[in-house]
Amino acid sequence: MKNNGEFGFIEGIREMFASMSDNGFEGIGDDCAVLPIGNDEALVFTSDMLNEDIHFRYDISTPYQIGYKSLMVNVSDVAAMGAKPVATLLSLSLPEECFGKWAEEFMKGYHAASEKYGVKLVGGDTTASVNDIAINVTAIGRAPLANIKRRSAAKVDDLIVVTGKLGASTVGLRDLLAGRTDTENAKIHLAPEARVEEGQWLAQHEDVHAMMDISDGISSDLLHILNESQVSAIVPERYVPVAKGAVLYDATDGGEDYELLFTVGGRNIQQLMGDFEAKFGKPLYIIGSIIESEDGKHTLGWECEGGIRYDEEAGGYRHFRYTNQEL
Amino acid sequence: MKNNGEFGFIEGIREMFASMSDNGFEGIGDDCAVLPIGNDEALVFTSDMLNEDIHFRYDISTPYQIGYKSLMVNVSDVAAMGAKPVATLLSLSLPEECFGKWAEEFMKGYHAASEKYGVKLVGGDTTASVNDIAINVTAIGRAPLANIKRRSAAKVDDLIVVTGKLGASTVGLRDLLAGRTDTENAKIHLAPEARVEEGQWLAQHEDVHAMMDISDGISSDLLHILNESQVSAIVPERYVPVAKGAVLYDATDGGEDYELLFTVGGRNIQQLMGDFEAKFGKPLYIIGSIIESEDGKHTLGWECEGGIRYDEEAGGYRHFRYTNQEL
Repeated sequence: MKNNGEFGFIEGIREMFASMSDNGFEGIGDDCAVLPIGNDEALVFTSDMLNEDIHFRYDISTPYQIGYKSLMVNVSDVAAMGAKPVATLLSLSLPEECFGKWAEEFMKGYHAASEKYGVKLVGGDTTASVNDIAINVTAIGRAPLANIKRRSAAKVDDLIVVTGKLGASTVGLRDLLAGRTDTENAKIHLAPEARVEEGQWLAQHEDVHAMMDISDGISSDLLHILNESQVSAIVPERYVPVAKGAVLYDATDGGEDYELLFTVGGRNIQQLMGDFEAKFGKPLYIIGSIIESEDGKHTLGWECEGGIRYDEEAGGYRHFRYTNQEL
Repeated sequence: MKNNGEFGFIEGIREMFASMSDNGFEGIGDDCAVLPIGNDEALVFTSDMLNEDIHFRYDISTPYQIGYKSLMVNVSDVAAMGAKPVATLLSLSLPEECFGKWAEEFMKGYHAASEKYGVKLVGGDTTASVNDIAINVTAIGRAPLANIKRRSAAKVDDLIVVTGKLGASTVGLRDLLAGRTDTENAKIHLAPEARVEEGQWLAQHEDVHAMMDISDGISSDLLHILNESQVSAIVPERYVPVAKGAVLYDATDGGEDYELLFTVGGRNIQQLMGDFEAKFGKPLYIIGSIIESEDGKHTLGWECEGGIRYDEEAGGYRHFRYTNQEL
């Protein structure tokens, strides 16, 4: 493994395990790991840890909301593969004072989200911690193998599309931190939803190539698609659908919108957009297009008034979610 | 959910989710969740959280050892089902000072254990914490459906068997806490191994009914089998194989031995014991037998000099691992 602190840690892990037999699994680098199980079916797996003061704050979110969100963020990763979420395993690590009422309210939220998305809790672990709350959820999804959408599948000339307006959750967090607890965006921040139906619907379309969910903001999430697909992108800033009350930066660099980000072959895009709107009662937004990479560099070019500014991945920092952007 | 603090929390969760569609999964209550996937095959899933100062101590275990053990304890749960471990997902939640050298050493240990047991790391998450180290591993195993061994499968007149002597890990922990770091038992405590080959071999035998791994000590682990199978047991204390340097209590109530505990129909037991010893170069130990429960109470009777003393499950306390017995 490379000894370069945070940067490249995930890359280092990938390299470390690269030579091992994969036991039928596809490797690291997507929203979920994929295991084909025969009969043209596949299972997908994802695991996420949520920490107090990093991913949520005890004083801002209720235990019910934290429980709901813990399930939802993992289901969102399953949705991003185009799979149907089927089950979760939950590990709860709680300081002593959280057993009892807190844990009970947490489980009510977790259960409500489980019902909403139709996933069964099939196992897990509950343990004590000395100081912090830590929550880990592993979600399992199922899909026809042919429907699985990978980050690595974007093609040159694909259009880049998102399933909704962006930035509301970030504005909502700002509202909450300023004590404005009952704004529309505060509510969106506290009770985000995963695009499970949309993901499965899009997964049935062959023209839809790469897909992922927007958890860290498109400026970093789209770079994952570009790097995995070895392509670049141009996104005119004016195409980015900015949520009410948000500014462009909230929409591009704010996290936790949980909309889906995907690329699609252009030929039938109008049909797809019409069908989507007819089915879900809301539009899709084309934000840009996939272009060939130059000199092996996979760049995200933001077309703005002054020309184009370029983003490039800085070596895995975003993987860590080390900032408290997801508070 | 019952509002009774720690006690019954897991039972409460089971009840909460009982009415939901199971999406093809068997429910909570075993070392792993089981998903039949067709072609007479099944996948099994388990997830465990390890916490600083609860499951390990920063000052006693090296990061390499913690990495090795984090993988091993989950693989042990897969082994306990009779399945072959195939993949893991790892979530690491670390305070800032642990990124870099600590995380790198941890990953070396995790990788060494992954190679030892033949499991691929297929996904996960790395995040920052404010204070504590928290590690969550989800392990996935695969087995012929007919070979899966459940806690609920013990039958009246089965013999109760363990795959090795018990108590060494507990004695080793005592040694370490007293500063005796290079005893045989200290080494066993710091680098325990899962009985993966043994589990799969036993799983091929129809006569082997219930099975689990011994993580909390047989006095509580055997009670899980009794409760899930709705039977009782008699264990003569003199039959319990006590490791060198340990006393009976270490063997019955100490944790982290990771031997397998199983029940077997008596007819071919001698053959099984002989074959096991020929294959693995070590004996099996019969420690007692399964009897019918009276008055709906599933009890573990310890036959000792003064007669029989009875243990009964106290409502789920053990599920929590709330003590630091696993330090």
